[in-house]
Amino acid sequence: MDNNDKEKISIAVVKRLPRYYRYLGDLLEHGITRISSNDLSRRMNVTASQIRQDLNKFGCFGQRGYGYNVEMLYNEIKKILGLDREYSLIIIGAGNLGQALANYSNFKKRGFNFIGIFDINPEIIGKKVGNLIIQNVDGLENFLKENKVDIAVLSIPKTNAPQISPILVNNGVKGIWNFSHIDLKTPNNVIVENAHLTDSVMTLSYKISEIENIEQSE
Amino acid sequence: MDNNDKEKISIAVVKRLPRYYRYLGDLLEHGITRISSNDLSRRMNVTASQIRQDLNKFGCFGQRGYGYNVEMLYNEIKKILGLDREYSLIIIGAGNLGQALANYSNFKKRGFNFIGIFDINPEIIGKKVGNLIIQNVDGLENFLKENKVDIAVLSIPKTNAPQISPILVNNGVKGIWNFSHIDLKTPNNVIVENAHLTDSVMTLSYKISEIENIEQSE
Repeated sequence: MDNNDKEKISIAVVKRLPRYYRYLGDLLEHGITRISSNDLSRRMNVTASQIRQDLNKFGCFGQRGYGYNVEMLYNEIKKILGLDREYSLIIIGAGNLGQALANYSNFKKRGFNFIGIFDINPEIIGKKVGNLIIQNVDGLENFLKENKVDIAVLSIPKTNAPQISPILVNNGVKGIWNFSHIDLKTPNNVIVENAHLTDSVMTLSYKISEIENIEQSE
Repeated sequence: MDNNDKEKISIAVVKRLPRYYRYLGDLLEHGITRISSNDLSRRMNVTASQIRQDLNKFGCFGQRGYGYNVEMLYNEIKKILGLDREYSLIIIGAGNLGQALANYSNFKKRGFNFIGIFDINPEIIGKKVGNLIIQNVDGLENFLKENKVDIAVLSIPKTNAPQISPILVNNGVKGIWNFSHIDLKTPNNVIVENAHLTDSVMTLSYKISEIENIEQSE
């Protein structure tokens, strides 16, 4: 797949790819080498036509009567998601969330390697989190000059985030995974992926209240 | 707005509402009582036509030459998101992530109240997290029978999640906020909102590798 093909994938499909990747990985682990869109549809609880629509773009992996070649499709999605390489990450904010992320083994398995963790709180600077020692955020800029950092995880209060963001942008960080509850302004070539947990729980409260309204009106 | 109107809101718009809610809340805090779609557009970095499309559904809050009444719009979105009431939550899994969520003050501010936290690990059962004491997950079912719980947060390894899920479903939990990296099967009236952090970071790696591919081909 060349870049021109890649650009045609819509962001809606991209958001669904990690789930396909996860299911295909599970199939591989269980020694399943091919699967029909109908079978995958049942497992993933999406329609077979959605699966065909999503996956047939990636070349002719789905052949009538044969199904998908699980390993080829898995590797293709891996490549599309940029998971055929490793990323170096740092965490800004070593509170509970920062520590949770640093200790989450799934990231390392996928090629996301934490190489530094920073905080502003003198009481925790110097303490160990996993294999890392919490550093003073004052040293962030130097660290970035001396180490290639692909992704910075922002798990700090929203009031501090706008000061940290330019330091990251000006020192070669390519992506910010933003858990701070504020929108960051960055140049076009620095990606911000927001993981706003409050937004996520609000989608849940919306759906719960929607169901309750329906039940009440019945 | 009655239920019939409410059902017409697409899930794509619902996913955007928390961001509007956040910006409108900030405006209110700064004493701004009305705002044009153009001004809101500049602040939120989305097109004014997108804003009008999203918000004009909610009744005639946007009037030509007047703009939106910030407070009315804020309150309407609050109602739509189900935030005009309180929710009781429990956390299953008192690891770093569970503790981070329990301590996150933004949730309480929005009406999400944690009333219990559970774990399987005897070494942490009995310890305090915020105002809560970590309970043995063996007592989960009894707790659910004695307390009204709206939302259960699942922050446990994926292998344990399928055993916990039916206990929640059978004891009146209305929504599961699922951080465990597995898809849960629940009846239609029990909502699952997935917060799969690995999926989120994969969207980031996709976008980073996309930009790098473009840069390399230039």
